[in-house]
Amino acid sequence: MGATLTATEPAAARPAGAERATLRLLISCPDRPGIVSAVSGFLAEAGANIIRSDQYSSDPDGGRFFMRMEFAVAPERHPDLGERFGLGVAERFDMTWRLWDAAVPKRIGVLVSRYDHCLQDLLWRWRRHDLGGAEITTVASNHLDLREDVESFGLPYHHVPVEKGRKPEAEAQLLELLEGECDLVVLARYMQILSGDFLERVGVPVINIHHSFLPAFAGAGPYQKAKERGVKLVGATAHYVTEELDAGPIIEQDVIRVDHSNSSAELERLGADIERAVLARAVKWHCEDRVLRQDNTTVVF
Amino acid sequence: MGATLTATEPAAARPAGAERATLRLLISCPDRPGIVSAVSGFLAEAGANIIRSDQYSSDPDGGRFFMRMEFAVAPERHPDLGERFGLGVAERFDMTWRLWDAAVPKRIGVLVSRYDHCLQDLLWRWRRHDLGGAEITTVASNHLDLREDVESFGLPYHHVPVEKGRKPEAEAQLLELLEGECDLVVLARYMQILSGDFLERVGVPVINIHHSFLPAFAGAGPYQKAKERGVKLVGATAHYVTEELDAGPIIEQDVIRVDHSNSSAELERLGADIERAVLARAVKWHCEDRVLRQDNTTVVF
Amino acid sequence: MGATLTATEPAAARPAGAERATLRLLISCPDRPGIVSAVSGFLAEAGANIIRSDQYSSDPDGGRFFMRMEFAVAPERHPDLGERFGLGVAERFDMTWRLWDAAVPKRIGVLVSRYDHCLQDLLWRWRRHDLGGAEITTVASNHLDLREDVESFGLPYHHVPVEKGRKPEAEAQLLELLEGECDLVVLARYMQILSGDFLERVGVPVINIHHSFLPAFAGAGPYQKAKERGVKLVGATAHYVTEELDAGPIIEQDVIRVDHSNSSAELERLGADIERAVLARAVKWHCEDRVLRQDNTTVVF
Amino acid sequence: MGATLTATEPAAARPAGAERATLRLLISCPDRPGIVSAVSGFLAEAGANIIRSDQYSSDPDGGRFFMRMEFAVAPERHPDLGERFGLGVAERFDMTWRLWDAAVPKRIGVLVSRYDHCLQDLLWRWRRHDLGGAEITTVASNHLDLREDVESFGLPYHHVPVEKGRKPEAEAQLLELLEGECDLVVLARYMQILSGDFLERVGVPVINIHHSFLPAFAGAGPYQKAKERGVKLVGATAHYVTEELDAGPIIEQDVIRVDHSNSSAELERLGADIERAVLARAVKWHCEDRVLRQDNTTVVF
Repeated sequence: MGATLTATEPAAARPAGAERATLRLLISCPDRPGIVSAVSGFLAEAGANIIRSDQYSSDPDGGRFFMRMEFAVAPERHPDLGERFGLGVAERFDMTWRLWDAAVPKRIGVLVSRYDHCLQDLLWRWRRHDLGGAEITTVASNHLDLREDVESFGLPYHHVPVEKGRKPEAEAQLLELLEGECDLVVLARYMQILSGDFLERVGVPVINIHHSFLPAFAGAGPYQKAKERGVKLVGATAHYVTEELDAGPIIEQDVIRVDHSNSSAELERLGADIERAVLARAVKWHCEDRVLRQDNTTVVF
Repeated sequence: MGATLTATEPAAARPAGAERATLRLLISCPDRPGIVSAVSGFLAEAGANIIRSDQYSSDPDGGRFFMRMEFAVAPERHPDLGERFGLGVAERFDMTWRLWDAAVPKRIGVLVSRYDHCLQDLLWRWRRHDLGGAEITTVASNHLDLREDVESFGLPYHHVPVEKGRKPEAEAQLLELLEGECDLVVLARYMQILSGDFLERVGVPVINIHHSFLPAFAGAGPYQKAKERGVKLVGATAHYVTEELDAGPIIEQDVIRVDHSNSSAELERLGADIERAVLARAVKWHCEDRVLRQDNTTVVF
Repeated sequence: MGATLTATEPAAARPAGAERATLRLLISCPDRPGIVSAVSGFLAEAGANIIRSDQYSSDPDGGRFFMRMEFAVAPERHPDLGERFGLGVAERFDMTWRLWDAAVPKRIGVLVSRYDHCLQDLLWRWRRHDLGGAEITTVASNHLDLREDVESFGLPYHHVPVEKGRKPEAEAQLLELLEGECDLVVLARYMQILSGDFLERVGVPVINIHHSFLPAFAGAGPYQKAKERGVKLVGATAHYVTEELDAGPIIEQDVIRVDHSNSSAELERLGADIERAVLARAVKWHCEDRVLRQDNTTVVF
Repeated sequence: MGATLTATEPAAARPAGAERATLRLLISCPDRPGIVSAVSGFLAEAGANIIRSDQYSSDPDGGRFFMRMEFAVAPERHPDLGERFGLGVAERFDMTWRLWDAAVPKRIGVLVSRYDHCLQDLLWRWRRHDLGGAEITTVASNHLDLREDVESFGLPYHHVPVEKGRKPEAEAQLLELLEGECDLVVLARYMQILSGDFLERVGVPVINIHHSFLPAFAGAGPYQKAKERGVKLVGATAHYVTEELDAGPIIEQDVIRVDHSNSSAELERLGADIERAVLARAVKWHCEDRVLRQDNTTVVF
């Protein structure tokens, strides 16, 4: 979800033999009375047991309504649940919606340059099944530095250098690796700006970690700028990437206290711990289908 | 709510002329499929518009289900809504439930001794309408120190000294002030232990602020104990009072960083800021009907 | 201190009869070997007992050295200590320095508009002797709203309205109230921009609280901007006022977590708690002579 | 340091060719006037340039004084600096002291059981030179699970199983690995209780990470206990190990916010991030010679 909430086919088939499917329904529509009743009535009739439900209305009078429902349902009721929901409920309320099967892992492609901290944390969390059920399937970098790290996790490492004046060629190579092969692209300190054309063609949400508390210190060199401005906290921001640099919808942010005695290099070291934590949370929440977009902001359930 | 979730009469009458009533429905029952559908279906039929909804299940299979729904309803549908809900829905699901009218303020009685920080913060938030719509109606103390502070807010100050060996008499005096006159009692650093008999007779929830991160440093002198143990954070805990000292259900906690250079007196001063913030949040949440009890813990929506 | 560290007369005379004076020495000079030895040797010879000492060097090779020493000294050694330090030590190391008597309270003038939270917190901390020993001596406002609050603390309330096109007249009135009457001016949500001319003539440091995590959301309406940008934390910044709006040296900052469900009005309410805490800490630290300026940043010991 | 501050030989020889040695002097002694002057005078005479200095007195009148000075000195002045300090200064003030060469890395032996998070973080920080200059030299475990992880960092993995009733034999094996081979032992979630005899014989400080905010939830199963008590924050504590379980001097603590919806398993997952961060900070600070013991607490500079 995240990027676009569109009516869709029923989620991909689950592994056979599973007793009950856990599904996640995400909805966004104009707010008006009766939505929760219609949705929960539909689910009750399907024999579903709601595990968790979250909702938010930007304004009960004329605002927009957002909902996430996680529920368990018998596998025989599952296959056409989406279709029936679309016809029976979604259309009536003019819903943008999507149904996810919690058992089908999101496939993540990671782009990285030379800093290892965000990548390491993602790989380590992936291995301990702490990334919202997601699978890291591809890692590509414009440098060779982190090849060994990645390969030690049993993953191939794709080296896609970006030569001066030849960025379109590099992006084409990346698209070949990523297109249709992943459900999410994560920029784990990837120091190249991706073109609008790339973002459009890759067709899945792209999450970036920026090493400042946005909108403060957008652009290059945020720790140096933070040192110069003399701030007392440094932070990090995970956001969906849009064409405008460092201006996409924010998913998560956090900060750490610093003081006058910290050099710009120390800010960078302290900030690295915040960067990896913030990015890991954002990726996990996204992969648990907990993040919806509302214009240029996010609703995180 | 909080203390007991029991089927009850419809909430007290609202000021006339109000366009739509905002009500809060709190539910706790054995979890099973169909609850949300039944409740939201009932509300949809009553023409209610759900403003906010939160739910939690301790276990979708055989656990306990908790829900809070805030909704707007036309005043003519309002008077017998509780009665109809009780007969039409609550009974079927074996619900413990309660319906609150958001427009009817909770009346708070505050007990205090000599420290002013928690009391001041509550009074100040009350005046700026930042206490969940509650009204402070009574302040009583076993000391005279804070009389002027309280009176400057236009409130009477009841001096109920606790003489050695004459606690029952003091508690009887307090009961006379509080019984039937308030919906919540707040101990804003009241340094007397209330008897089980008092707690039973006062008949409303009692919230206490303890000046440590419970269960660490229960009992007297927590800052001194914290200094001796050399902890690197000190905290505060707001909890419902039960007969067992400092062992009731925790509503809210927070901490602040300290170091070796802080004396026990400085811990007390730093901790005071945490105490007042934690107590204010707990009281506000309680008065917004956001706190449900689950055994000896709380669900905070 | 803060604003300017200049060689100065010995601190004002202390109340007679005091056993030992507690003094604070603040130093800034080019870093080179022997500074600590020279200063501590001077103090040892004067029979002083160092209570607390902090130092910071921007670079041990060719950087700038900052030091704060708090020490107790016999009153008969006290009167000419500054003079002797100036001649015996400070000159040799090209020091900018200042000696403060901890027993002489800083006098604070507060400017405020209509929001009460920062003012209330300062008044309350002043009363409980939790403002670094400072005294609030003057409160002035361009509105009448907070008169009663201020007067209930036994302070006069000066109403200095700022009529359209007549700001110079208002500033002249303020200068008459403040000039020579206070050692620090605090803008506790004073919603008028002070002219460079005012800042120069008032002759003492001016501390402002800005309701955002600077440099994010400088200027007007930061909570509205924060809501629009969808940040996950809102903050506050206390800084020395310079002619450039919201760009002066930062003394203290803090943040609080928010989410998509918080309206801009709720951000304002949540942020108010951070604003008052951040401003109170900055004022306290300043009045304890713990803040030194380094270009457009601060060293906080 | 930490464990014992004793007069000692000059720190081990540094790599040849270094321009200036960076040394750290740690002192603890009865507080009285003249200490800083004597120490800094001695250093000035030795041509040392103080890089950083911290001090703390438990009470300027009759308390105990603690100091850490980091300074640069020419290598030819270095060899007998300790000896001269011992005779010329330390004796006069009855100092417990120690001189460390910042260039000589502390050697760390890590004990671990099956949880990988704390170990991984230490290994990763060691590799990126973010552990206070320390070297991890030995890893031993009573299980085989983490062998591959450790070996991928180029370290040998010692499997020392603890069979029922044969703990003394296991401890003897560990002592053989550790004695004289490391300057610090770190228990990175080592689930065996070490005997007092072991602690005495190993002869270096031992740091443990406990998965709760001590003194709350000492002993086994803290996350389960936290869930049952319904706390709103869970934490972790790094402390020096003493014979009394979970009761040694605390070096660092931190907490993370949780709520009613988090299962005990989720508390464990959330807490793991705090555990590894807290342990890494404590180990780093120890290896930077920033931690001194004061009775059963620590002074952290």
